[in-house]
Amino acid sequence: MKDTATESMIQAVSDRLESFGFVVHKVVGVNQTILGAIGDKRSVEPSEFEVMEGVHEVLRITVPYKLASRTFHPENTVIEVKCASFGGEQVSVIAGPCSVESEEQMYTIAREVKKNGGRGLRGGAFKPRTSPYAFQGMGEEGLRIMQTIGEELGMPVVSEIMEINQLDLMLRYVDILQVGARNMQNFSLLRELGTIRKPVLLKRGLAATIEELLMAAEYIMSGGNYQVIVCERGIRTFETYTRNTMDISAIPVTQKLSHLPIIADPSHGTGRRAKVAPMARAAVAAGANGLIIEVHHDPDRALSDGAQSLYPHQFQRLMEELRMIAWAIGKHI
Amino acid sequence: MKDTATESMIQAVSDRLESFGFVVHKVVGVNQTILGAIGDKRSVEPSEFEVMEGVHEVLRITVPYKLASRTFHPENTVIEVKCASFGGEQVSVIAGPCSVESEEQMYTIAREVKKNGGRGLRGGAFKPRTSPYAFQGMGEEGLRIMQTIGEELGMPVVSEIMEINQLDLMLRYVDILQVGARNMQNFSLLRELGTIRKPVLLKRGLAATIEELLMAAEYIMSGGNYQVIVCERGIRTFETYTRNTMDISAIPVTQKLSHLPIIADPSHGTGRRAKVAPMARAAVAAGANGLIIEVHHDPDRALSDGAQSLYPHQFQRLMEELRMIAWAIGKHI
Amino acid sequence: MKDTATESMIQAVSDRLESFGFVVHKVVGVNQTILGAIGDKRSVEPSEFEVMEGVHEVLRITVPYKLASRTFHPENTVIEVKCASFGGEQVSVIAGPCSVESEEQMYTIAREVKKNGGRGLRGGAFKPRTSPYAFQGMGEEGLRIMQTIGEELGMPVVSEIMEINQLDLMLRYVDILQVGARNMQNFSLLRELGTIRKPVLLKRGLAATIEELLMAAEYIMSGGNYQVIVCERGIRTFETYTRNTMDISAIPVTQKLSHLPIIADPSHGTGRRAKVAPMARAAVAAGANGLIIEVHHDPDRALSDGAQSLYPHQFQRLMEELRMIAWAIGKHI
Amino acid sequence: MKDTATESMIQAVSDRLESFGFVVHKVVGVNQTILGAIGDKRSVEPSEFEVMEGVHEVLRITVPYKLASRTFHPENTVIEVKCASFGGEQVSVIAGPCSVESEEQMYTIAREVKKNGGRGLRGGAFKPRTSPYAFQGMGEEGLRIMQTIGEELGMPVVSEIMEINQLDLMLRYVDILQVGARNMQNFSLLRELGTIRKPVLLKRGLAATIEELLMAAEYIMSGGNYQVIVCERGIRTFETYTRNTMDISAIPVTQKLSHLPIIADPSHGTGRRAKVAPMARAAVAAGANGLIIEVHHDPDRALSDGAQSLYPHQFQRLMEELRMIAWAIGKHI
Repeated sequence: MKDTATESMIQAVSDRLESFGFVVHKVVGVNQTILGAIGDKRSVEPSEFEVMEGVHEVLRITVPYKLASRTFHPENTVIEVKCASFGGEQVSVIAGPCSVESEEQMYTIAREVKKNGGRGLRGGAFKPRTSPYAFQGMGEEGLRIMQTIGEELGMPVVSEIMEINQLDLMLRYVDILQVGARNMQNFSLLRELGTIRKPVLLKRGLAATIEELLMAAEYIMSGGNYQVIVCERGIRTFETYTRNTMDISAIPVTQKLSHLPIIADPSHGTGRRAKVAPMARAAVAAGANGLIIEVHHDPDRALSDGAQSLYPHQFQRLMEELRMIAWAIGKHI
Repeated sequence: MKDTATESMIQAVSDRLESFGFVVHKVVGVNQTILGAIGDKRSVEPSEFEVMEGVHEVLRITVPYKLASRTFHPENTVIEVKCASFGGEQVSVIAGPCSVESEEQMYTIAREVKKNGGRGLRGGAFKPRTSPYAFQGMGEEGLRIMQTIGEELGMPVVSEIMEINQLDLMLRYVDILQVGARNMQNFSLLRELGTIRKPVLLKRGLAATIEELLMAAEYIMSGGNYQVIVCERGIRTFETYTRNTMDISAIPVTQKLSHLPIIADPSHGTGRRAKVAPMARAAVAAGANGLIIEVHHDPDRALSDGAQSLYPHQFQRLMEELRMIAWAIGKHI
Repeated sequence: MKDTATESMIQAVSDRLESFGFVVHKVVGVNQTILGAIGDKRSVEPSEFEVMEGVHEVLRITVPYKLASRTFHPENTVIEVKCASFGGEQVSVIAGPCSVESEEQMYTIAREVKKNGGRGLRGGAFKPRTSPYAFQGMGEEGLRIMQTIGEELGMPVVSEIMEINQLDLMLRYVDILQVGARNMQNFSLLRELGTIRKPVLLKRGLAATIEELLMAAEYIMSGGNYQVIVCERGIRTFETYTRNTMDISAIPVTQKLSHLPIIADPSHGTGRRAKVAPMARAAVAAGANGLIIEVHHDPDRALSDGAQSLYPHQFQRLMEELRMIAWAIGKHI
Repeated sequence: MKDTATESMIQAVSDRLESFGFVVHKVVGVNQTILGAIGDKRSVEPSEFEVMEGVHEVLRITVPYKLASRTFHPENTVIEVKCASFGGEQVSVIAGPCSVESEEQMYTIAREVKKNGGRGLRGGAFKPRTSPYAFQGMGEEGLRIMQTIGEELGMPVVSEIMEINQLDLMLRYVDILQVGARNMQNFSLLRELGTIRKPVLLKRGLAATIEELLMAAEYIMSGGNYQVIVCERGIRTFETYTRNTMDISAIPVTQKLSHLPIIADPSHGTGRRAKVAPMARAAVAAGANGLIIEVHHDPDRALSDGAQSLYPHQFQRLMEELRMIAWAIGKHI
């Protein structure tokens, strides 16, 4: 409460807190009175009390998410899909082109990924492009190609879902459904993904705090789907040399706050090929449970994101380095 | 090109540019060679050339949007809906509660808005809440209430559409469809809104640049719907005292780059009631074409956003101040 | 405390708080125990307790500054220097060139400023340039020119001090000493400015929170100099169209938290001439106690910051608009 | 130039460019004309041309620094001080307490650092504290203690210089002079450090771009002191869980743009002890040339920054992990 708050203002706030089901403790200081509200009421927003007369500030002590919180689920959640495993001692690397462009392209790249120890295939069939005039993806045909190749190589397939109407289609072809950074707070989509029983790869929004990322995971989990892998892929800051600034510290922070696995996307996180390997190594060194990386056998001619795709020989070398780094902290690739 | 680029690298880039339909000019400097590519190829992304050997940097001289650009449409677009007008000399103020809660609540507030010179009614029926456990809105019943009151008072009604599946419903009840900040880059939704013939109020995303805001408008316009009103509602910065930082300078910048009207939302832009009036005045003083403001007759008991809603008497006083400020720069409320 | 904290951990934190002179209140909740520490110990940093075993989070309820806080000094501080007044009903506009370049240049511009109602003269003699190769200012000769003209026109003179060693010199010539954004946390300089008895114009750092700005003011005030005018001049955000993003909401926020006057610098805040007038109007509409603006009679040939300097005729028109806006909120220019 | 620029406007800009010594090339496009100015004129600021009539935008192709640029100095600069080496294959770890508190404290910690492979000692004697009421450091006595211990253990000593007046004192006791983040653009101080012949450890400012960091290095180098080690220590972003966001990608980016060594400070970069080791590992994995880390044998009782200081046993384990990570990328600790 403000130092100018009267007894009756303090009483009014106290009464209102009790009407919400909280047990209220009053602490009287030299200049100010503090009201401590005890109770498990995640649906009450602090701002609803900040407007009351005499209130100085409302601080939330407990986190606003529950299912995603490590407090209520101390052990790591381990998500296993085919040969990939996220959350345990394995660091699973998913790789592939930005967009599926043809069966041959996908096959060429997938074999390189497999050969070098990759454990998942990525590829976009529907692309969220900033410009309405850019290539928008192959659609269902792209999904079909990925599924065929994924099954042949025994690797799970990851692709992005852009809207609710694509859900049935995606479920038919894809092993892990990716939610892009721009859709991290598309709550209608999140709610729908709570009803399915396949893992969701949830990317952090460009301006999302770690708490908001975990709240978005909570949206999915509150529908009954607990298989959520979150992904750090760079946040927007004032630094413009890299497209985004990868918040590597989000990896250990998320692992402290939540039991969910977290992976990193150094391709979108940097937007520049030459920075992908250093940031991939940094993410694994910081404890990431996996990576998702763009690889292309002919990036100069890629239909999207060529500038940030690794050549196969770069991917090979990176995987060798990652193996040693993982080993340095008690994990393996 | 880099200072280390060889003749053949320069030739390769030049050839590739020409294959995309550009006319190429070569400027040879002391240390570096610069290739100027002339042509109207908005679909080509600079990054597609940045990956080529010997390339130092690719800079785009022209903006990546066209329909939204003032270059190709020098006069202001003026959007008129009932008594409201955006883009001309009138500064139209839209006001109302965050959420429609009941017919009585909406009616009480709407009359206050009308009486004080407001020219549009706002109210949420479907609420995008950060927490899955918070109040999610009245749905269709809320829309029906707004429509009835809007028609009685002769005021256009603004409400937020959260997903494509709500489109038919929204079109039946609402005069201006709002796209929330979190959906600014929900490209599926934007594309759909390009097919309708009602004005769209497009809010700037928390981490969106002005260029990205105008690209989102371009998405809608490329479908044939040119009635787009953009809205500054605060961006995310390191300052945490206010919920967001209103980027008032975005108002004159957008008006320079685009012919579309731009309004401001000081309620979401600040998140604090006491800051709404100063920021509303600032926006109008900076040249905003309108405002969208939350007003509630009993904000302590509002089901959402009470902390940032003005009391009716505060709204009244603000409108008086705005009248004089608008007049100071040759406009009227 | 964490939900896993043992009784002995809680006791250890409680004991340590008491050893610092706090009175401790213990609130026992369902999952967690909260310790409330009451006392006026501004020198204790929360982080010193965050490291203790079992501690979940340390939240400071009171602000870390005291002399700058409105809590302990409810009335506005009004700072008067010659014809200028900051903090009362007058909105004082300081204007002039970025750098003093010659007596003739300064004189030409100063007369324009005076004629149009400006109440202070600005001009740089020592310039903090990002590049070591750029023009660094006229030095003492520039100060002498400003003083002569300021005295003739009866206007106070504002110039930037860059280091402690310039203090004697500045005191001889200047009425208000400006601390630039880059020096806002140059604590050695701040401490020295606490010992003088002339007003200090303290600019907000590019990445400084409002709390840090007020802490910097506190540094000066803790030395006994209470005449501090703070200045919003733009913060660094991801938006790059404008050089900085002016945080107009910092004006009402600072006025709520502190009794010190706050002015705005729309020239550095935007870095673009065409945006100076809209942002100057916005700042006054939001309640700023003054402005500091760059004006130049021949900006194309200015030795620094020409791109953001107003022409005299633009300054004249702006002052006319500002007069009406100030009047709309009960102030005058 | 703008599409509306007339021939005479284009000629005026072209003439002015030539008057600055540039060779001008004119490229005429469909809608716009582009003027390419060739010449090595780092002191000319683009904004000086942006104000001219008809100018659309001025883009700088070359970087504004020269001595710090890799273009003009392709090999790494290797800085060697006693047993430490920055810029070559060794990754040198500097460690020690935030502040020197006593001879015994410093000695205890220094031996731990030495034993575990540290190659430099850090310790503050003059502390830049945000609050004027916090512990300000031991001053000269602290420097003397560090020097004695550094000489005994054969390790170079690093301490922060806060103002020009401390320069003689620092030179007497310290091997590497640190410039703190808040002073990164204290140009007076930088210029003075250009005249000495000891290495300078220059920390990146909280809101400084990589280009600005290298410009600050250029300030020092332009005075003749080429021994500059730059340091990434976190930037300010919207994420508040960690005190700052470490921009790990700044490490490879700086190494690409400049020949200067870059080290990382995970202690200030995160502000939280539990995040120091993951971020230290990430920095080395990304290619950092060294680290500077806070270690304290009794952090609960440290007079400053205890919350981010590692315990000796944590430091020991970290050094073991770092050894393997360095080896994975062809380096050693």
